[in-house]
Amino acid sequence: MKQIEWKAWLEKNRGSAVKLLQKLIQERSTQGKESSAQAIVIEACREIGLEIDIWEPDAKEMSTHRNFVSVREHFHDSPNVVAIWKGTGGGRSIILNGHIDVVPEGDILQWESDPFEGKVKDGKVYGRGSTDMKGGNVSLLLAINALKSTGVKLKGDVIFQSVIEEESGGAGTLAAILRGYTADAVLIPEPTNMKIFPKQQGSMWFRLKVKGKSAHGGTRYEGVSSIEKSVIVLEKVKELETLRNNRVSDPLYKGIPIPLPINIGKIEGGSWPSSVPDLVVLEGRIGVGPEEKLDDVKQEFADCLHALKEVDSWFERHPVELEWFGAQWVPGTVEVGHPFVKLIEGAYQEVAQKPAILEASPWGTDGGLFTQLCDIPTVVFGPGTTEVAHYPNEYISIDEMMKAAEIVAIILMNWCEIAE
Amino acid sequence: MKQIEWKAWLEKNRGSAVKLLQKLIQERSTQGKESSAQAIVIEACREIGLEIDIWEPDAKEMSTHRNFVSVREHFHDSPNVVAIWKGTGGGRSIILNGHIDVVPEGDILQWESDPFEGKVKDGKVYGRGSTDMKGGNVSLLLAINALKSTGVKLKGDVIFQSVIEEESGGAGTLAAILRGYTADAVLIPEPTNMKIFPKQQGSMWFRLKVKGKSAHGGTRYEGVSSIEKSVIVLEKVKELETLRNNRVSDPLYKGIPIPLPINIGKIEGGSWPSSVPDLVVLEGRIGVGPEEKLDDVKQEFADCLHALKEVDSWFERHPVELEWFGAQWVPGTVEVGHPFVKLIEGAYQEVAQKPAILEASPWGTDGGLFTQLCDIPTVVFGPGTTEVAHYPNEYISIDEMMKAAEIVAIILMNWCEIAE
Repeated sequence: MKQIEWKAWLEKNRGSAVKLLQKLIQERSTQGKESSAQAIVIEACREIGLEIDIWEPDAKEMSTHRNFVSVREHFHDSPNVVAIWKGTGGGRSIILNGHIDVVPEGDILQWESDPFEGKVKDGKVYGRGSTDMKGGNVSLLLAINALKSTGVKLKGDVIFQSVIEEESGGAGTLAAILRGYTADAVLIPEPTNMKIFPKQQGSMWFRLKVKGKSAHGGTRYEGVSSIEKSVIVLEKVKELETLRNNRVSDPLYKGIPIPLPINIGKIEGGSWPSSVPDLVVLEGRIGVGPEEKLDDVKQEFADCLHALKEVDSWFERHPVELEWFGAQWVPGTVEVGHPFVKLIEGAYQEVAQKPAILEASPWGTDGGLFTQLCDIPTVVFGPGTTEVAHYPNEYISIDEMMKAAEIVAIILMNWCEIAE
Repeated sequence: MKQIEWKAWLEKNRGSAVKLLQKLIQERSTQGKESSAQAIVIEACREIGLEIDIWEPDAKEMSTHRNFVSVREHFHDSPNVVAIWKGTGGGRSIILNGHIDVVPEGDILQWESDPFEGKVKDGKVYGRGSTDMKGGNVSLLLAINALKSTGVKLKGDVIFQSVIEEESGGAGTLAAILRGYTADAVLIPEPTNMKIFPKQQGSMWFRLKVKGKSAHGGTRYEGVSSIEKSVIVLEKVKELETLRNNRVSDPLYKGIPIPLPINIGKIEGGSWPSSVPDLVVLEGRIGVGPEEKLDDVKQEFADCLHALKEVDSWFERHPVELEWFGAQWVPGTVEVGHPFVKLIEGAYQEVAQKPAILEASPWGTDGGLFTQLCDIPTVVFGPGTTEVAHYPNEYISIDEMMKAAEIVAIILMNWCEIAE
């Protein structure tokens, strides 16, 4: 009976769900600018009637924690939001965790419409953050709202978290953990194309400084171009990527072209068209396998750069500088046979009418913090299209977002148990 | 008799010449910040007793001129200075042209001392602009001062010019030409290692936009890295450089490893370590042979980029954008047998006691404007070490600067003629 009621509620509220997502997209919540999007989240949680905890994480206090990574010195005006739906007691609790921050929009010319408009077209909502992961967050709020509004009562607590800083290292989730929030399981609805990711790839940001020797461009043969030397570095890093990926045998990575990518995301060098550039700075991210240790990966990367001198003697006296900076996501893993994973598989099958696909995530999430720091079984599963995350013309299918809400509602009822 | 007097004057004033150069170096006259260095020049010209003309070039007025190239919209606070030593009449006039602007210092860590200190060590003055070309400018002022102070009178006018904007396209010299300054010959003491350059390479700045397709770094195989595509572009541009240089047969370029270099001076792309970069911007300069036409070189470069689609089909739908921006120096040439060239060769031999070396310049100068717009025979010859121009730890030999002053004095007396 209840079953039918909450499902009908979801169908009825499809329009307002889309509006909520649009409002969230319209607040351009790139790093440091999360507060207005969080205000929308807070308003939605208030309407549902959840207990709300809002705080600005204390960067100074967290700075000594070994998993604290952020380029920021403070989080003023960047609040975390946690909203609790208290259970009646005796059931298993769950954290529903989503991040509110989005990556920058990139080259605006590649967008067909304003990335912060939230345009609806052909059953999709477009915009930066639609898929990664404001759509997933809306699914979570919808699921809670549907159950609560139709009178469903759960035994276990449901702890909804809207965190900052996921895109640059997880300081928001770390802050929530340090504030004492814990549960028997964590679900993170990052855009997985509705696949279930029991394993999450970790990742780390690195900065490489490639040296050259300046000279007048008209006598460029008197200098050494750091851009030309960077080409050699790029090749070497690609070799390392191949080497690392050839070692991956986990069946969860089957069919993924590059399970553990090394991405060079930024390049900058030189200051004058007529001068030979003497410095190039490269920034990128390296994927860390679910069972790998961050330190081992760091060592392997350093060794690779060290070997550059065998390719080009320039690097003997001018070694590439390696720095680990900014974001870092620890990898996470939960056994494929864990009851929480099985329960999600079941909920998916019930709604989608087909078996769930299990994979390992191609990117880091905040999941690793929950598994590694708190030993909480954590699964990443959500609506949204992996391929358009961080892309121009990012979108989410409204159907998929609604379906995810339905699956989350079933997960909540089955994990936390219905209190009669 | 006079001969001995002016030479003795030069020897006596070696210390104050070094001090003048130091003062000029200490005023960091990078683009847009030339006025305080020009103030030192003006003071020196006043002390010599020259007629001084100071004005801020009118960018708006010049903007329609086909040889006007500048990224600047105005030259407020960036004055040109022209100082005239009027002849008694009947002699040939000469323009002595030097630029006051310097390129930025580059990576400060590669400098052994402050680039704007003007440190003196082992007979050299160090600092940005010492060689390119404040040392040459001091030689000019010394030569004039030595002759004038010791009572030498010349028949022809000597027109000393301290111009802005040479390092970014010659708007300063263009402004001096448009103001009406002309003469029977031009000498530009750019750092030639005391070689004589009757031919000057032209050059142009270009900007290339290399496209990619953004994606999350963790699924980088879904995107197209503009950094990886840039590597292909860099290779192609290097091929063009080889092709162009294989055509050079002018004996003045003998022994020069790359007569007409294409230099990539700047690279910038991507905005986030975890995203696949969708745009890389490259900036550089291409050398233009003394007899080449700018438009022909532009066409050849465009054709080269157009051919990229044969290397990689990506470029078919995403062609590299080419833009000619900022600086542009027209090439210049005067016959090797011209009397003015011969006269400089003679003056050099008289002072250096060895034959002069004639070459073609590896870089653009303002000389091209004088030859192409006004048909004035123009020679580039000066003290200073070509190899350290635009380098860290740039320096000039004090001996060489003083020797150049001596040679310039002889050139003035022989070209403009002594009035008895």
